Order: sequence, then structure tokens, then C-alpha cells
Amino acid sequence: MPIIRHMCRNFDQLRPITITRNFTKYASGSVLIEYGETKVLCTANIDDNVPTFLKGKEQGWITAEYAMLPSATHQRNKREINQGKPNPRNQEIQRLIGRSLRSITNLSQLGERQILIDCDVIQADGGTRTASITGAYIALVDALNSLIVQGKLTSLPIYEAIAAVSVGVYQQQLLLDLDYKEDSNCDTDMNVVMTSSGKIIEIQGTAEQQAFSRAELNQMLDLAEVGIRQLLNYQQQSLAKYS
Amino acid sequence: MPIIRHMCRNFDQLRPITITRNFTKYASGSVLIEYGETKVLCTANIDDNVPTFLKGKEQGWITAEYAMLPSATHQRNKREINQGKPNPRNQEIQRLIGRSLRSITNLSQLGERQILIDCDVIQADGGTRTASITGAYIALVDALNSLIVQGKLTSLPIYEAIAAVSVGVYQQQLLLDLDYKEDSNCDTDMNVVMTSSGKIIEIQGTAEQQAFSRAELNQMLDLAEVGIRQLLNYQQQSLAKYS
Amino acid sequence: MPIIRHMCRNFDQLRPITITRNFTKYASGSVLIEYGETKVLCTANIDDNVPTFLKGKEQGWITAEYAMLPSATHQRNKREINQGKPNPRNQEIQRLIGRSLRSITNLSQLGERQILIDCDVIQADGGTRTASITGAYIALVDALNSLIVQGKLTSLPIYEAIAAVSVGVYQQQLLLDLDYKEDSNCDTDMNVVMTSSGKIIEIQGTAEQQAFSRAELNQMLDLAEVGIRQLLNYQQQSLAKYS
Amino acid sequence: MPIIRHMCRNFDQLRPITITRNFTKYASGSVLIEYGETKVLCTANIDDNVPTFLKGKEQGWITAEYAMLPSATHQRNKREINQGKPNPRNQEIQRLIGRSLRSITNLSQLGERQILIDCDVIQADGGTRTASITGAYIALVDALNSLIVQGKLTSLPIYEAIAAVSVGVYQQQLLLDLDYKEDSNCDTDMNVVMTSSGKIIEIQGTAEQQAFSRAELNQMLDLAEVGIRQLLNYQQQSLAKYS
Amino acid sequence: MPIIRHMCRNFDQLRPITITRNFTKYASGSVLIEYGETKVLCTANIDDNVPTFLKGKEQGWITAEYAMLPSATHQRNKREINQGKPNPRNQEIQRLIGRSLRSITNLSQLGERQILIDCDVIQADGGTRTASITGAYIALVDALNSLIVQGKLTSLPIYEAIAAVSVGVYQQQLLLDLDYKEDSNCDTDMNVVMTSSGKIIEIQGTAEQQAFSRAELNQMLDLAEVGIRQLLNYQQQSLAKYS
Amino acid sequence: MPIIRHMCRNFDQLRPITITRNFTKYASGSVLIEYGETKVLCTANIDDNVPTFLKGKEQGWITAEYAMLPSATHQRNKREINQGKPNPRNQEIQRLIGRSLRSITNLSQLGERQILIDCDVIQADGGTRTASITGAYIALVDALNSLIVQGKLTSLPIYEAIAAVSVGVYQQQLLLDLDYKEDSNCDTDMNVVMTSSGKIIEIQGTAEQQAFSRAELNQMLDLAEVGIRQLLNYQQQSLAKYS
Repeated sequence: MPIIRHMCRNFDQLRPITITRNFTKYASGSVLIEYGETKVLCTANIDDNVPTFLKGKEQGWITAEYAMLPSATHQRNKREINQGKPNPRNQEIQRLIGRSLRSITNLSQLGERQILIDCDVIQADGGTRTASITGAYIALVDALNSLIVQGKLTSLPIYEAIAAVSVGVYQQQLLLDLDYKEDSNCDTDMNVVMTSSGKIIEIQGTAEQQAFSRAELNQMLDLAEVGIRQLLNYQQQSLAKYS
Repeated sequence: MPIIRHMCRNFDQLRPITITRNFTKYASGSVLIEYGETKVLCTANIDDNVPTFLKGKEQGWITAEYAMLPSATHQRNKREINQGKPNPRNQEIQRLIGRSLRSITNLSQLGERQILIDCDVIQADGGTRTASITGAYIALVDALNSLIVQGKLTSLPIYEAIAAVSVGVYQQQLLLDLDYKEDSNCDTDMNVVMTSSGKIIEIQGTAEQQAFSRAELNQMLDLAEVGIRQLLNYQQQSLAKYS
Repeated sequence: MPIIRHMCRNFDQLRPITITRNFTKYASGSVLIEYGETKVLCTANIDDNVPTFLKGKEQGWITAEYAMLPSATHQRNKREINQGKPNPRNQEIQRLIGRSLRSITNLSQLGERQILIDCDVIQADGGTRTASITGAYIALVDALNSLIVQGKLTSLPIYEAIAAVSVGVYQQQLLLDLDYKEDSNCDTDMNVVMTSSGKIIEIQGTAEQQAFSRAELNQMLDLAEVGIRQLLNYQQQSLAKYS
Repeated sequence: MPIIRHMCRNFDQLRPITITRNFTKYASGSVLIEYGETKVLCTANIDDNVPTFLKGKEQGWITAEYAMLPSATHQRNKREINQGKPNPRNQEIQRLIGRSLRSITNLSQLGERQILIDCDVIQADGGTRTASITGAYIALVDALNSLIVQGKLTSLPIYEAIAAVSVGVYQQQLLLDLDYKEDSNCDTDMNVVMTSSGKIIEIQGTAEQQAFSRAELNQMLDLAEVGIRQLLNYQQQSLAKYS
Repeated sequence: MPIIRHMCRNFDQLRPITITRNFTKYASGSVLIEYGETKVLCTANIDDNVPTFLKGKEQGWITAEYAMLPSATHQRNKREINQGKPNPRNQEIQRLIGRSLRSITNLSQLGERQILIDCDVIQADGGTRTASITGAYIALVDALNSLIVQGKLTSLPIYEAIAAVSVGVYQQQLLLDLDYKEDSNCDTDMNVVMTSSGKIIEIQGTAEQQAFSRAELNQMLDLAEVGIRQLLNYQQQSLAKYS
Repeated sequence: MPIIRHMCRNFDQLRPITITRNFTKYASGSVLIEYGETKVLCTANIDDNVPTFLKGKEQGWITAEYAMLPSATHQRNKREINQGKPNPRNQEIQRLIGRSLRSITNLSQLGERQILIDCDVIQADGGTRTASITGAYIALVDALNSLIVQGKLTSLPIYEAIAAVSVGVYQQQLLLDLDYKEDSNCDTDMNVVMTSSGKIIEIQGTAEQQAFSRAELNQMLDLAEVGIRQLLNYQQQSLAKYS
């Protein structure tokens, strides 16, 4: 018996996607991305210093930070500073975001400067890490374009676009773009980051309750690709607008 | 010669004030308040536990936390967790917010529960602490009303409304509701928290560069009162709407 | 019915004030100040480095730290290092002390050096922050005089003297220079920092339990002025002695 | 032209695997596992308390910690306590180890107790996380068997065995079980955790420099499976010995 | 050629010793002890809770904390909270103080309560750890006597008195009770804690620059004994006074 | 009645001592030392930077760190990073190790470089600090020899060898080289660091339960010397082997 998803969503249907560029005014790129009720503010700031290990290497760097507002979750979550140490889940996600964006950026062409990505979750309803990647890509492009406008770069040092989505298996049924309730109940959960040429940047699959077979893996990847194609389209449409 | 303020604002004129209730969906009260370009998300969550020092005292408590998103400021500000210790300015402001809200709340009537206020600055252009207090008051009322709806309270345990505004002296001219640029240049800076009956809850005046006389203090308080009257009106209008 | 204060003190009477210069021998200024049973060691050390944000700006800086000995309070208080994070009340007070001293110091004339003020409370019986400011002013002057003796300054880079006192309202009665017991019971509590010319440097008023009117504010300020005049006298007498 | 690996290893050949049970004497399970020059001490301790969120839920838990000795790496690495905060890479790996072991354990059958896994890297030459999982599985089984011996469990609460290996693509050539030098140079890097029935527990693929296609993903998984079959055999042989 | 010590002190002469009981008023024992220019405030507070590891064991505990005021040293020393971690030298000294006091206390007779000793150095001129032990002993006795007065103990749970002193070898000459300058230049440095019956509680000898022979060790211990006899006398005289 | 020690060890007999050089491969010196069941990995790494306070002083430095693996102890011990602060016992021991090694090293001859010693306890059965010193000495020599091989030093900048052992008094009987059980029950406990010429570098004696006399101190030192002579022999034999 097929599962009835919230708002009668189809198993292979994304939640409504909204992308608002220039959501705040100080960062070089500032994007509010919404996957349904999940809302993440993704900003990109330019720093003229690179990390120590890159000093004098004539290449740039992209680093990311990810956090949740205390009121973003069903149960209020404690601020990291009040827990006394960084939240390991946040650390893991921000490493993923940074790695994904670096892999599609020509860091030599970027020059000795660093782009600082901040993904701050305003409201969390599942898929915050995938929304962060999809939104951060746009903030990154906006920040890089500001460098072109300032004459510091001559062209966009980007190989291709990326977007990310989650897929899962719930009671033997495949589902695209899990919301919080679906995510909590899934047997298997996979996050996929793909490029516009259909190549994989990151794949992270976890059997929460039940291991999955090679066949199921392939079905999940097929479904992820369906969602990512659409997300890449939304990104393009948003970037096409005069900022 | 009179100072020309941004957007030709009068010396005794507030910036445009916007109040959006139910900005996010999980907290019992969630208000986005804007004083011009300053935008603060104020939320109120209910916790059935009181702090240890109040256990068994048959009264409630209100506590506040205040923080800025990294991208909220002209120059990106570092997250507290990455600085390794709480930011003392944030600590000072959150103590002020908590104290202000507690002073107009009947804590015995509230019962043994705690209201956790979070003020997260999305964009900072001066006056974030005063906007936080004005907005947090509404979030608090919304949270308390939810307790009434649930039958846990019979009436609002609030003595009177509060709002807050800054005033300053810049080149001998009084100014109401300072934006970031004005605030950085002022000789004197005062934050005032007042109740709807015109009484003072908190007054914090600081001579950044030039001490001020008792006469100047009185002029600043007169001006603050003008602004606070209007803010109290905006609060009332917002709360009058069916949430 | 008038309140009977400890030691039959009048409502407008300071506690016995004692100022001991050169209390310890290594700091350039070292003052033990006592407001009755409240005892604070205020020291001033000279550092030839300024904070990073002032490098090359040809001006000096004054910064303050405030802490309590564990045995200073009625109930032993935990050391900050054992609580794992700075105490927010201490942070707020040390910011106040630093700001107050900077506002009466000609920082350009001071030159690219920093004065580090330490206010360590040996015994706390109310008014530790106001005693700290009054005492730290003397330690600051002693440290600056040592720079004159060394030929590094030609005159004292101080605009005017400052002192501080608390005032409160307790059962509708105004009280000057609150001790711990009075402070804990007051409806309203105000700390005032004033200069020798009668101008205000800082005013911090808090309605702990009952908001206060503009008229009450003015009465409190009148009373504070009475106390501060006397404190400025005590400072002058102390500094007049050959150190 | 085929790549010549260290010690003339074949592209689909594991490094020499050594498993030493009872390496230390206090933990309930203590295994030194070596993947070539990579040496990890995996121990399992039993704790009769479960984490707070599981109190009274009648099920157990498995948690893992992962760290490196300072001298384990080519360049000495700083201890976490001296860096002042947990190392995010370590945090990510220990979350992976805990998740993997939990997914093959019947936590209800385990009962209200917790198994604490410690993976401490004595020497790091690539593949420390995969070696940790393979070794920790044996330490876990040893600890669970000690509970059977003590009469606290009647049978092993394990669904099936797991082992883990890395695969990579280096200059278009697939390689199994990467050593440090290979790992640093790979375009793509994947860690796979599989069960004895050939199902996937975790898959983490990262394109360090070049995105990978679906076809490449499948080849990497085929190769991982070859390695994991052998590792599962080594585990079985080791566990067959009288401890 | 004999060394000329500061103030023409003899090689086997203590610095002037001053002991002030009841230096502050809240702690149950509060002693300012001075070894020449070294001044340490030693306080003892009673806590009705014992550490977790002693719960229900029907015995008490004594624990100590040691710290320096920032202005206590020749060069201002940073507060621990601002260094982000406990100072290891302080930790080592406070462990020594606690151990020394516990070894002469009948912890069973003390009952399930804890004595918290705080040794805060007001001015440091060498020998702060030995002065702390000698002073803390008196504060401890005062606190225990207050328990007798309250009827919570019937007699002093102390086996015998202790005091401590340093000895050193400087240019082949033995010296008692080293001041800061002597301590910094010594080849060998020894701290000795002895009881009134002449037994050793702690001996800590360190060859800073030159190892020492068994014969030298014995000479140093002879000299320490001379100093400790006098310190025990001073303690007795001080405690004999009506507090 | 004489005490029967584990494995029928004589009162003046060391546990079996094992020294394994080159236990790991990246550090310049890497020694696994075993005193019976106590196993410590001691490594020495060379750092071309000296600490700030030695910059430009034309001398080197030796610093040590000491820690335990979580599974090294009878009851699993928490990692320092998870306790949020350095373990004071570890801090004290690492200061002892560093001080001991520096005192027999010609730091001027070493030149402006630093040797970082890491002592990581794999299994703890008493005497970990003394085993650390004895083992670290060998790792230090191996590291210094590597500097000679590289032509950076012409001869070993070591005055003489050192080794360390514990002695204790248990039920009036002297015991050499205490294991964990003996150590926990001893009335008195002493750690002695001696050189090959029989001189003392460090002596740390603690009366856990019963103060000790000068006569007992001398007996303990006699016994320590017996053990240290043998340990110095084992070191020499180990270093005589071609590494």
C-alpha cells in the first residue's frame, strides 16, 4: 500500500522549493533557500586571507559553517556555546558543505582568498544539509560575481553547478526529499550531491535500521538524480534574475 | 546646522517598524521585528522546568539569550563557539532582556515554568538590543496566550507592556532610534526600557566621548518617551490581529 | 516610618570609606578601597602593547578585569575557571569599569600603551562595582604618574576625576550606597558614575521589582551626587599624600 | 600504465591484515588490528548505564570514540585537549563507527547497558576508520561474549558481522585499501561498510578532485566487496581461536 | 664567600612571619599569612556535601584551590579564565595543599562534610606554596573549631600540626626559606612539609640545574627542620589568641 | 610477617622490564617500555621551533606530554577532551618528565630546537610516571642520535643517563617498584629520579596515610637506588643494540 505523504506529495516529488537571493545586505552572497518548511540562510563572505596551510600557494579556499537557531527545531535546541563544545553533527555537515563546494571550484583561479560560507538554519523540517548545499552554491556564485564586478576576477572559477537532495527507503518504498517525520522513520537514508553533468560529488548512505542491497542503492541514486535535475533548474532560474 | 539623517529621517522619528508574528512555526511565540534595516528574530519557548534556585518556590522565570548570525554585521562576526567563549556584549544584552521581561511579569502567577526567550539578530544596523526587547515582549505574550489556550493559565500574568528605544547625542543634537552609523559616532548613547504607564524599567546611559549633564539626560528621556509611545502602539496593533 | 540602617547610618550617608594606596608592590598603581565591609583591590599595570585594533593609531587604551575571590561572598562563590566559562556578571562589570575610565582619559595623549586595571574583590558587601571604579581611578592616576616620573609622559592625560556610588529605593525610601542586604531587598537600584564637574559618565538603573517614575529618577540622581562629591574629596585627599 | 603500489601490491589486494585479540587486559574486548602499517587499538567496555535519552526504554546502546596518539602520524598531531576543542574529523569518524556497530546489533536484546568502543590509532598509514570498524566489531563480540559468560545474556545480540574497507580512483585506476600516500593523491575516495550477507551499512564517497560517474561508483563497490569478503574471513578466523 | 641575603638575613633564618586570623569575615577560617613580602590569603569554608566518590562512606574530605591575583607577580600574570584552561602549576600546588592537610586530619571523625581551602596569593615573592600550607593549617583549625562551637564535632579531628618551608642550594651554599630572587637562581630547590612530631608529610626536591647527592639531601632536610620548628611555634602562638 | 607480592616478587625486586625501541615508525625516538603489566609508549619528536620565551636565546628545550588511553585503567578513564579540561594529575606528571629530562640535557648544545616527548600509557598497573621517565630517556637519546646522523649535532648533548622508580612502605615493610594494588594500599609512596652517577634529580615523597621519619626516608632512598642501578643497565643494553 503506497504511503500518503504530507500535502499528498508523490514519492518522487520535491517539496515546494523557494530561493530568495539578497535576503540580507552585508554578505557578498545571501540566499534564503526553502525546501518546504525547511528554511536555511546561506551567505558567502570574502576574506582576503587564506588559511595558514595555503599561504603562498597561489590558490584560494572555501570553508563552511553550519548551525541551527535554537528555535529552529521541534524541541528548542541548545546553542553550541552553552553546551561548551561544538556540536559534532554540525561539524560533520559543515565539512560536507565545504568539501562539496571546493570540488566544483577552480581554487587556483580563485586566487589567494577565501570564501566563508555560513549556513544558518532558521527552521528545520528535514533535509537541512541538502538545502544548505543547494543554497550555498547560489550564494557562492553571487559572491564570486561580486569579485568579477570589482575586477578581481575575470571569469567565474566554477567547473559546474551542484545541488543536493536526500532519498530514503520507508517501509520498502522509495521517497525523494524526506521531511523530518519521514527522515526519522526511514530504514535507510542517503544524501547525494551531484553536478549538472550528472556526476557524483558526495554520496552518504546510512542504514539506520536495515542494511540495503546494491539494487536498492541504484534505485535510490536514480531517484536522487530526478530531484537534483529539478533543483539545478531552480538554481539557474534564480541566478538568471538580475540580482 | 541640523544633521541630515539617512532617508531624511527627523531627529525624533523612529525608523520604519515592522512586526511579523509567527515567523517560524515551532516556538510558542515567534516574532520578526524590524527597526529599519535591523532585523531580529525573537522567539519564546515554554519549559516545564524552572532553574534549580527556584525549585519548589511556586514561581516561574524568564530567561533570555541573544546572539548574532555571523553574516548579520558589516564585517562578518565570528560565532561564539569558534571564539571559544561567550561574547561579553551578548551576555550583557541577554541579561538586560531577561531582567526587563521579568520585571513586568507576575512570576508567581506564571507558575513553576520557565519562558526561554531567544533573540537572534538576522541583520544588525544599530538598536538590536532595543528591538530585541520590543519584539521579545510580543513573543512572550504569544507564548503566554498559548498557555491560556491550553488551560494552563487563566489570564495573562503581565502587569503592563514594555518597549525599548535608543537615544543619543551627536554633535550636540539629540537623535531618536540610532542606526549603526549614528550609534558609532555619538558622544552619548542611552537605551531606555519603559512601560505603557510611562515608568522606567531600565535606563543605561553611556558617555562614549563626552560626559552629559542632568539637563541633557532629561532631554534624552523626553525623546525616548516619544519613541516608546509609538512602539507600544505598534505592539498593540500587532497583537490585536488574530494570530 | 524611616528604615533603620546598619550602624544607624543616615539614608544619605556613605559607609566609612578607606583608601590605602600602594597596598601591593609590583603594580604601578595598587589601591585597596573599602566602602564599609566591601573591600576591593584595584591595581593598574602598564603594558607597552595596545590591542590589535589600535595598532598604529597613535592612541592608548584602558581595559579592566573584575573578579571575586571565592571566599569574598556570604556563600563561597566558584572560581570562573572551575565553572568553565567567564561569569557574565563579572564581564558586564569589567566592561563598565573600562568604559568609565576611558571616558575621562585623553587616550591620544596616553600614547600607544595600554593600562590594565584589575579589580579583585577581597570581601563583598554590596557596591563592589562602584567601589571598583572609585578605587581604580586612583590606581590609574598612580600608574600614569609613574609614567611621568619615567619621563614617558609630560602631564597627566586625565580630563577630570570620576567616582561612583549606588542609590536605591527601598519601601519608598531613598538610600545612598547600598550594602548587600539593602541591595538584595531594593525595588530599584541605580549605579551612577559622575565626574568632578558633576557630569554623568554612566547611569544604570534597574527596576528589580517596581518600575520607577521620572521624578524618582531625579531624586535618585540628586542623592547620588551627594555621595559622589564626598567620594571625590576622599580621592583627592588620598592622592595628595606623598605616595 | 598500471601503477606500482608499495610492496608490489595488486590493485585489488588488501595490505597484510593482522588481528591480535586481548592486546590489553582490562577492557572486556581489546583488539589490535593492523592494515599494513596502520595500527589501531580497538577496545570495548561495558557500562551498566545507558544514555539519558534511553533510560527506561529497555534497550541498550553502543557508542564509539576515536582518537590518534600524537606520534601516530607523519607529522606529530596535537592532542585535542591542547587544541581546546574536539577534532571534527575524529568526531565524524567516531559517529560512523558507533552507527555501523549499532546497525548490526539487536539493541533490545542487549538490554539496558551500553558498550563503549574506543578506537585509538597507534600508527596511521591510511584507512584508520575502516580498520577501526573491522577491529571494533571483534572487540564488541568479545565484550558481548563476556556478558554471556557472566550469565547476563543468553546469546549474541548480533544480526551479522561487518567489516569496512576503502577504495579509490587514482589516475583512472581503481585501488583497494588505500595507504596514506595513495589516499592523499586519489581523485575519489570511498569508504564502504558491508555485512556478511553482502548488504551495505554505510557508503561514503567523496570526489576530492574529480566527480565520479554512476559506472565508476559500481566498479568501486565491486572492488570493496572483494576486500570486505576477505576481512570478514580474517575476523571469523580470529574469533574462532580460544580467547 | 658567603652570600649576602636581602635584609642581611642569615642562611638559616626565616623571613619575618606574620599571621593575621579573621582577615575576612564570611569564611569559617580566614588567615592572611606573610613570609616576608609573600602574602597569601588562606580561607576554609565548610560544605555539607562530600564529593561523589565519598557519598555514604561516613568520612569527610579536604580539598584545596590555589591561585594568584593577576597583580601578585613581578610581571602581571593572566587570569586562568582568560587563558582558557587551568594553570598546571596552580593545579599541582593545590593538589599538594589538599594532600598535606588530609594526611593530618582524621577524616572519619570529620564526618560526611568537606572543607574547602582557598589559597589566594595577594603578593608573590617566593615560597607561596609553603606559606599556603602553613596558613591553611590555621584556617582549617579555625573552621573545625567553628564546628565544635556549633556542636557538630566534639573534638578537633587533627592528628598533629603541619607547616612547610623551602630550602635550596645556591652556589654550594644552603639557604632556608627562599625568596623569589633566590628561588630563581638556585641549583636545587626543595619543599618540605613536616609535622610537629618531626615526621615528613611531603618532600619535593628538584634539581633545577645540578643534581644533588644524598649528603646534600640530608643537609637540606636538617635546615628545613630548623625553619619548620619555628613556623609551628608561630602557628601555636597565633591559635592561642582568642579569635 | 613478610608480605607475599604478586608473582612471588622479592621486596627489593623490580617487575620484569621490557624495552622495545622503534615501536612506531614516524617519531625520531619511539620506545615501548614495560614495568610488568604497565606499558607506556614514549616517543620523541624534533621541532625546529623553540617556545616563545626562548626565541633568540641560543638554547633548546625539552617538553613532555603524558596521557592515558581510556582503556588503560581498571575502570575505563574518560578522555581529557570529554572532561572539558586537562587532567591535573596528567599535568603534574608531564611537568615532572620534562623537568627530569631537561636537567640532564645540555640545552645550549642542543641549539634552538625543541624535543617533544609523548608518554602515552597503553596499560596502567602502577608506576606509569617512573616508567615514562625511564623510557622517555631512551626515546630522547634516539631522537638526539638522529640529529647527529643528520649532521645537525656533533655529539650527544646529555650529561648522564637517568631512570626512575617508585618505593613505598606497606605495613611497615619497604617495597620496590609498586604495582597498582600495592600503590593503592601503601602508607607512604616515593618516586625517585636518579642519574647514573647516583645523584638525585627529583624526589617526591608523599605520606598517604602515615607520616614518615628521616630514617625511613633514607631506607627508601637506599632501596630506590638498587632499582635504579638495574634500570640504568637495561637502558644501556637496549641502546647498545643497533637500532
